[in-house]
Amino acid sequence: MAKTDKADRLKPRLPRGFQDHDTGTLRATRAMLETIGHVFERYGFDPVETPAVEYTEALGKFLPDQDRPNEGVFSFQDDDEQWLSLRYDLTAPLARYVAENFDRLPKPYRSYRYGYVFRNEKPGPGRFRQFMQFDADTVGSASVAADAEICMMAADVMEELGIPRGDYVVRVNNRKVLDGVMEAVGLAGDENAGKRLTVLRAIDKLDRLGPDGVRLLLGPGRKDESGDFTKGAGLEDGQIARVLGFVSAGGATFEETLANLAAAVEGSARGAEGVAELAEIGGLVDAAGYENRVKIDPSVVRGLEYYTGPVYEVELTFETVNEKGEKARFGSVAGGGRYDGLVGRFRPEDTPATGFSIGVSRLLAALSALGRVEDRTALGPVVVLVMDRDRIADYQKMVADLRAAGIRAEMYLGTSGMKAQMKYADRRNAPCVVIQGSDERERGIVQIKDLIEGARLAEAIEDHAEWKEARPAQVEAEVANLVDTVREIVGRHC
Amino acid sequence: MAKTDKADRLKPRLPRGFQDHDTGTLRATRAMLETIGHVFERYGFDPVETPAVEYTEALGKFLPDQDRPNEGVFSFQDDDEQWLSLRYDLTAPLARYVAENFDRLPKPYRSYRYGYVFRNEKPGPGRFRQFMQFDADTVGSASVAADAEICMMAADVMEELGIPRGDYVVRVNNRKVLDGVMEAVGLAGDENAGKRLTVLRAIDKLDRLGPDGVRLLLGPGRKDESGDFTKGAGLEDGQIARVLGFVSAGGATFEETLANLAAAVEGSARGAEGVAELAEIGGLVDAAGYENRVKIDPSVVRGLEYYTGPVYEVELTFETVNEKGEKARFGSVAGGGRYDGLVGRFRPEDTPATGFSIGVSRLLAALSALGRVEDRTALGPVVVLVMDRDRIADYQKMVADLRAAGIRAEMYLGTSGMKAQMKYADRRNAPCVVIQGSDERERGIVQIKDLIEGARLAEAIEDHAEWKEARPAQVEAEVANLVDTVREIVGRHC
Repeated sequence: MAKTDKADRLKPRLPRGFQDHDTGTLRATRAMLETIGHVFERYGFDPVETPAVEYTEALGKFLPDQDRPNEGVFSFQDDDEQWLSLRYDLTAPLARYVAENFDRLPKPYRSYRYGYVFRNEKPGPGRFRQFMQFDADTVGSASVAADAEICMMAADVMEELGIPRGDYVVRVNNRKVLDGVMEAVGLAGDENAGKRLTVLRAIDKLDRLGPDGVRLLLGPGRKDESGDFTKGAGLEDGQIARVLGFVSAGGATFEETLANLAAAVEGSARGAEGVAELAEIGGLVDAAGYENRVKIDPSVVRGLEYYTGPVYEVELTFETVNEKGEKARFGSVAGGGRYDGLVGRFRPEDTPATGFSIGVSRLLAALSALGRVEDRTALGPVVVLVMDRDRIADYQKMVADLRAAGIRAEMYLGTSGMKAQMKYADRRNAPCVVIQGSDERERGIVQIKDLIEGARLAEAIEDHAEWKEARPAQVEAEVANLVDTVREIVGRHC
Repeated sequence: MAKTDKADRLKPRLPRGFQDHDTGTLRATRAMLETIGHVFERYGFDPVETPAVEYTEALGKFLPDQDRPNEGVFSFQDDDEQWLSLRYDLTAPLARYVAENFDRLPKPYRSYRYGYVFRNEKPGPGRFRQFMQFDADTVGSASVAADAEICMMAADVMEELGIPRGDYVVRVNNRKVLDGVMEAVGLAGDENAGKRLTVLRAIDKLDRLGPDGVRLLLGPGRKDESGDFTKGAGLEDGQIARVLGFVSAGGATFEETLANLAAAVEGSARGAEGVAELAEIGGLVDAAGYENRVKIDPSVVRGLEYYTGPVYEVELTFETVNEKGEKARFGSVAGGGRYDGLVGRFRPEDTPATGFSIGVSRLLAALSALGRVEDRTALGPVVVLVMDRDRIADYQKMVADLRAAGIRAEMYLGTSGMKAQMKYADRRNAPCVVIQGSDERERGIVQIKDLIEGARLAEAIEDHAEWKEARPAQVEAEVANLVDTVREIVGRHC
């Protein structure tokens, strides 16, 4: 390939809202995914994955914060003119998978998966157009025991990742209770479906906007700081008061909350059913000893349209400093709920289902804030320096011997001299370098320089000449002892 | 969500060429990815990932088997009308990444990554539109020691995965040698670039089509079994003979091959340079003891346009039965080469680079064929049966106790009776089930039925009545001893 002229040269850049992941982030993410997977496995869930691309119609129109169909997804046409989309979550594809493989799957069917999802939305701080979710779902069980199980599993995940009990809470509510409140304020029926969704999404913003902001979104609408106007649900004051009263129905005890909720849905059979389900979840959680970790909270609604019963959210309750420099609770890192209608879009029989999604980057940020992420970039490879270009086969052999012994090692592959090679080794966080110039070669030895010990000593020794004289943290070894000597040095720093 | 009417019901299906991955495949794939990652780490490579979406122009027009620009990729327009594409390999995005982060990366820069890539091509047997590649690359080293290192690393990967020495070979060639042959047959110069690519791709099909097929592709063109016609390079007989002569220049020894190649490129300075590089690679491989694993082979060309120097391919040499029922070598599972121009599309300075890609599914298929893939679906969770619907809190507690002890366990979440629950446990490969009906409850015990031992005994006992009487493989335990008893049974079957 010919060299590129300046005029033709491309600017190396990523499309807005997409990001690269560096070594430290990847190692920490993988360790976290592995821990989460272990907990899911322990609960009897098995891994299953679907591809990133689905038929657009199979995904449906269930995007959060998107009222217009097909907004928010990346779509393109296939050769045969059919529309394909990148998945925007892992739930809709799972519904398609279960429907497609219905007869051969055990039922109830517990499965888990992690993967990237894509949102064709305006990116912002911490808001990306490709991000990873880690989901677990139980399909084919109408029992709220399935919901309770996922809430307890979410709690176990948090603790297994090192988040102390008390620093997180799994908050549970029920869409049926919400439906009961909607009935009570006169928003029942198919003709009010759109309005109900607007109400849900308004409540979902309580954490971020506070009661006054939500009051505007339930009523005439709200202008945000940037001047953008969000249309409200158009409720009247009496309706708004009743909705906000429901949201703050959380009492001091589980029993008190249930009593408040029962009052809020009085007269609605569906509402009463929702309260009974919450009572059952509370009983199961209690029996298993999770009562301080999984709690009923009427302010939880979740922004997705497809939920039909219990909804739940994992909130981290410790304080951090947010992007505005204010102290705030870390907030939600996972959420989910029951979606009894999704599989039914493809199948004649009812197929109840429940599941939750962990926001992987957000959870990693939380672990970081808690100091729970090890610095996994710490120890780089041993670097064998190239002192004599004509002898790279010899250096290559040393590297091969180190690697064969399971030691992370590399030969310097650039063209620079000794000083730049030492700088390279520093940059790679090498525990030590191996040096064999002509002098060492004649004597059948190598010099091994411990860079970590060296850096420590360098702080103590002030005089440069004295430093050079002392050659601290440097040992000679016979070539035959290279592997053992390096292993000993690397072992010191692990 | 209302139940879907039959008329509105969607067919659950995936777009052509996309696939779901089941539990067994995922577990085996993850184990394989982990092993490969360990080898790459040992060689000093660090993980770095780029997203699935890039600007179309950043990916360039380097697709294999595609002469028309932007064919073969999935593309869509962003809000600002700019074209985005799903990556078709991991190499072009890495070039963008290195160019974008040039100043802060150590150089030479060793990195690795796995991820899905997307090809908008006609799918076929074993040919998917989304598949996983696992790449390792060294950017910023012009030394063929970098190429040699990757070849040796590829060999180590194969052995670490359990592929015996002798069942694989890393075959190496050099595009400069090929260029020399092209010069020799009068195909030098920019005006022949398209023709040279056609010749490369013809040679690349040698394994599949044999010399007669390649001869047609080098000449007038070839009609395949389906009647599709592929246009040939239009070479004359003398040119074709020289190209095919080169392809079969592999000798009995390394020295003989080099001599044949030197003869084939006589008069071409670039060709001679390529032969010298191959000699150097041979020397390094020899010094490190890999001479029987990494071999010079003039028939290796690789189908991608962007290679500029050494090219290499990992071939599995053991025989399997192919889709036509014929015995054949398993074939290529990985390949790569030097691509010195890719980063330079974005940067003023020369940035040499070399790297390779493993075809993850293909390699997994190979391990399967060799019996090197453990059956990781073997042991399912312990299943606690629900004998009395009103007591699910009690069963839930048993499951919570088992999980807290690190035992994979679940409560049956469906609505069926005992018989169906036992069938479910069988289907889940449960090692045992836990049973507590009202009788057991009164006595403060549980019944634990070892399903694996039970199945074994069932083969031995013929009479059903005798079977019921004996209750083989079933033990009673006090509730307090549930965890220990289950642990003991599960331990037997691990």
